[in-house]
Amino acid sequence: MWFTGGFWRHRQVINGTTTMEHCRTWQDRLGWTTNFRDPSALTRGREFSDSEVYKLVEALCWETGRPGGEDHRADLAELTALIGGAQAADGYLHTAYGRPGQPERYGDQNFGHDLYCAGHLIQASVAAARTGAAPGLLDIGVRAADHICATFADEGFCGHPEVETALVELYRVTGERRYLDQAAAFVSRRGHRTLPEHEFGWEYFQDAVPLRSGRVFGGHAVRALYLAAGAVDVAVETGDDELLEAVARQFDRTLARRTHLTGGMGSHHRDESFGEDFVLPPDRAYSETCAAVATVMLAHRLLLATGDLRYGDIVDRVLHNVIATSLGDDGRSFFYDQTLHQRVPTPGRASWLPVSCCLHNMARLLASLGTYFVSEDSGGVQLHQFAPMRVEAGGLVLDVDTGYPDSGTVTVTVVDAPDTPRTITLRVPAWAAGADGVHRRVFRKGERIRLDLPMRPRWTFPDPRADALRGCAAVEVGPLVMCAESIDLEDDVRLDEIQVDTSVAPEIGAVKGRRTKPIDESWPYQSHRTTTEGPDPVVVSLLPYHRWARRGPSTMRIWLPTTT
Amino acid sequence: MWFTGGFWRHRQVINGTTTMEHCRTWQDRLGWTTNFRDPSALTRGREFSDSEVYKLVEALCWETGRPGGEDHRADLAELTALIGGAQAADGYLHTAYGRPGQPERYGDQNFGHDLYCAGHLIQASVAAARTGAAPGLLDIGVRAADHICATFADEGFCGHPEVETALVELYRVTGERRYLDQAAAFVSRRGHRTLPEHEFGWEYFQDAVPLRSGRVFGGHAVRALYLAAGAVDVAVETGDDELLEAVARQFDRTLARRTHLTGGMGSHHRDESFGEDFVLPPDRAYSETCAAVATVMLAHRLLLATGDLRYGDIVDRVLHNVIATSLGDDGRSFFYDQTLHQRVPTPGRASWLPVSCCLHNMARLLASLGTYFVSEDSGGVQLHQFAPMRVEAGGLVLDVDTGYPDSGTVTVTVVDAPDTPRTITLRVPAWAAGADGVHRRVFRKGERIRLDLPMRPRWTFPDPRADALRGCAAVEVGPLVMCAESIDLEDDVRLDEIQVDTSVAPEIGAVKGRRTKPIDESWPYQSHRTTTEGPDPVVVSLLPYHRWARRGPSTMRIWLPTTT
Repeated sequence: MWFTGGFWRHRQVINGTTTMEHCRTWQDRLGWTTNFRDPSALTRGREFSDSEVYKLVEALCWETGRPGGEDHRADLAELTALIGGAQAADGYLHTAYGRPGQPERYGDQNFGHDLYCAGHLIQASVAAARTGAAPGLLDIGVRAADHICATFADEGFCGHPEVETALVELYRVTGERRYLDQAAAFVSRRGHRTLPEHEFGWEYFQDAVPLRSGRVFGGHAVRALYLAAGAVDVAVETGDDELLEAVARQFDRTLARRTHLTGGMGSHHRDESFGEDFVLPPDRAYSETCAAVATVMLAHRLLLATGDLRYGDIVDRVLHNVIATSLGDDGRSFFYDQTLHQRVPTPGRASWLPVSCCLHNMARLLASLGTYFVSEDSGGVQLHQFAPMRVEAGGLVLDVDTGYPDSGTVTVTVVDAPDTPRTITLRVPAWAAGADGVHRRVFRKGERIRLDLPMRPRWTFPDPRADALRGCAAVEVGPLVMCAESIDLEDDVRLDEIQVDTSVAPEIGAVKGRRTKPIDESWPYQSHRTTTEGPDPVVVSLLPYHRWARRGPSTMRIWLPTTT
Repeated sequence: MWFTGGFWRHRQVINGTTTMEHCRTWQDRLGWTTNFRDPSALTRGREFSDSEVYKLVEALCWETGRPGGEDHRADLAELTALIGGAQAADGYLHTAYGRPGQPERYGDQNFGHDLYCAGHLIQASVAAARTGAAPGLLDIGVRAADHICATFADEGFCGHPEVETALVELYRVTGERRYLDQAAAFVSRRGHRTLPEHEFGWEYFQDAVPLRSGRVFGGHAVRALYLAAGAVDVAVETGDDELLEAVARQFDRTLARRTHLTGGMGSHHRDESFGEDFVLPPDRAYSETCAAVATVMLAHRLLLATGDLRYGDIVDRVLHNVIATSLGDDGRSFFYDQTLHQRVPTPGRASWLPVSCCLHNMARLLASLGTYFVSEDSGGVQLHQFAPMRVEAGGLVLDVDTGYPDSGTVTVTVVDAPDTPRTITLRVPAWAAGADGVHRRVFRKGERIRLDLPMRPRWTFPDPRADALRGCAAVEVGPLVMCAESIDLEDDVRLDEIQVDTSVAPEIGAVKGRRTKPIDESWPYQSHRTTTEGPDPVVVSLLPYHRWARRGPSTMRIWLPTTT
């Protein structure tokens, strides 16, 4: 499939032209590429900086391989040579370890990131193999994987999961079973507290409890979600239903208790971790963008493995409310963590950060985004996400037209179809329950299928155990979470003075409410309520959360206090 | 004055007998004392470990000097010799810097803690001078201070304030003006972003804005409060009313917007900092115990400097709800940070932590606690805090008897008094407004003054801008914040299922409410409310917050969701 227009194609084009160049410029400037060119030079960056180069290579491969994408073969040839030149004779590859004067290989199990970086290298080499965009890179990935299989045949794993899903992908590309077995071994070895003790605890490193017996995801959110994605890959390829069920169970509980309305995950800034159940503070949401990338990876895998459409809803939610929010319109700026409530006007997105994993992660996600929109089987095609796109799958050729997420109408035109019955399935989101998304018959050329999803703004209320959200409501429209931004308020109105009236249905782009005025006391705890009510009702403008912080410094909130 | 019984004397005795020994045992075990004995050995501990030894020395001095205290002169002689032996010829003293093979002196302005440690040394030497408990220590402190004055005559200051208040104290003891001038210079030099850039920002190090022009305290809470305490000392001794007003203004705003109900400060775990205004999450309160010690120091200084009784209320609140909560009954365990809402049963207090500043800080506070209870002037005596105590001050000898904070009756018996009029002032807390605390006349021996403070439990409501507290109320009794602990609930009732009815006045030790039952959904955000009401009203037991986590693992909350 390929996008023919709309919300995501626009972002994909900016990604392929601007974001990738921005990443490369910074990598060169900071010496992350030089680390490969001259391993004897002082290594610059962090223990995971190699992985940013690999993520960019992966993104360049997907972009070059997608119909209509930019051709980055020249860059890829240069980077492939650079990376290959730094690989040790035995296949080990990390620019910061193992050479004279450098720390030893695999010397820091918790934070060394050797295997994490190798995982991203392997993933990039798989993208190269799938697209043909970077000849020679697959061999580098294979050598790295062979070295890993030899070194970790019996024990050990990485403090930061990532190599697991990469090894399964390499198995899929090469057919070499040992990569799958190694991934399965890495998944099984975790959870027995064999990593060195650390102040963040074993949970942070996903080593507190075996994945098979876990109850809910905890610790570092990206680590947890990457591991789970790798485990689903292992489970699917080995037919390990118990493992699949274990991951689905924990993800389900995580969705029910540890996920922000945007689909973002993580509440603790100190260790980038999930909080306890229902610790979901809007103003201290961590919601790391990389965790959102990982959620898309995991939810889509579970959607395919289980057929449960709820997982497609999560992909939809995360894409439109976390991924789309992170990226600046210019393709050169991003949010690393994503608050749901901005109390003081923010300068907005950063063009770069010392840890810029998120930007690279989004680059590879956006370049390969079509992967998450459509799947096929012998019976037909499944349209999991909605965008204007040409689909050639399941024996069908389809043109999909839609203004989603701004419009709820999705029109599928059959361009070509066989004479035998086929099934075209469109995901019906939970918020559109009742619509029919399954069509099975012999389709004729030119025939149209139309899905109408209700895009009426709707009030959403939090679980009563989510203490930080008590007495608040939010507005959603289709997959979009809405927010109020202070820049839209009259000059003398403050965002924290507004209460909204949930007895009135929200309108498109606005809700009704009233203005209250807190009484400033010298102590914020009193024997009486310290609010007076303003005289007139107010109308509060709303905009999609992903559009916030694009018009100058502003405060913002998604969850709005209610009058009752 | 000295305590003759009651709440604090009990803790002071445990402190002098058990806590101090516990600290010393651990310091020896971890090599923090050995660092002084053998500076050529590998230095153990952290860059601030020297300061823990000094804090303990200070505590031992106060304890030895207080009437009825334990005599620690033998320990003090040993430690004084140890410390003196490690001091360089020019007066510099830090066991981790400046010797062959060690990093250079003052090499890390942000985190080196050279001056911070020296400040605690000087503070200990002042305690030695005031009590006579450790002969020779004052000379060591003076030499350290002289070295500082010589080294920092023109520029520089420490990433962690502390030396400022110590230098003013040394000025008070020695009369040497240069110590006061140096402290004033340190205060003035901050706030111009001259420290090296750091990911936590200049605010963390109190170097973002000059103290004179600050609006509210921010950054690392302990750093902010120590600096402010030192600034008040400087302001009082130099007659700098502008500086005093600047500190009071910022503290007032901090109390109004950045202070938990307990009086604890700090909401961010990542950098131990204040949050923005009204970021006061009960379940993610940081409320570091050391910040509470610093709040007591600062509030008492402002009380004396301004006469504003509200500052005495804060001392009262912090002592009974943060300091008293941190310490275990055994005197050998403590909370470092203090949540106001425990969601999963906690194992409770730790007997030691890699960073155990809080325990040492409480040891010195408790040993010198009487300092904060009484002051005198030519006209009489001021009783700022209430405890059974003998007071000899302001020309009067008084016996104070009270069961405070469990009882609100305070009886003052005049043991001796002159023939001329004197004023006895008892602080009337804000929650007891209306009581009369000022008595001026000629007092006769045997005469009694009685203050009756209303100890009725009362509902307390949060500022509407404190989002994390919306829809909740708390109960207070006198200076005590109350909490509900799951250990007191029936087996099948969960703490997060309870809503309390604030239309009914709280009883002693219990409030009325109802039980609700959240409906478990697969997604915590719904178009409808997801609670059902339980059939019967429930009675929720309450206990003082400082008594929680003493009867086994339990969940706990101070802020209780309300029925309306």
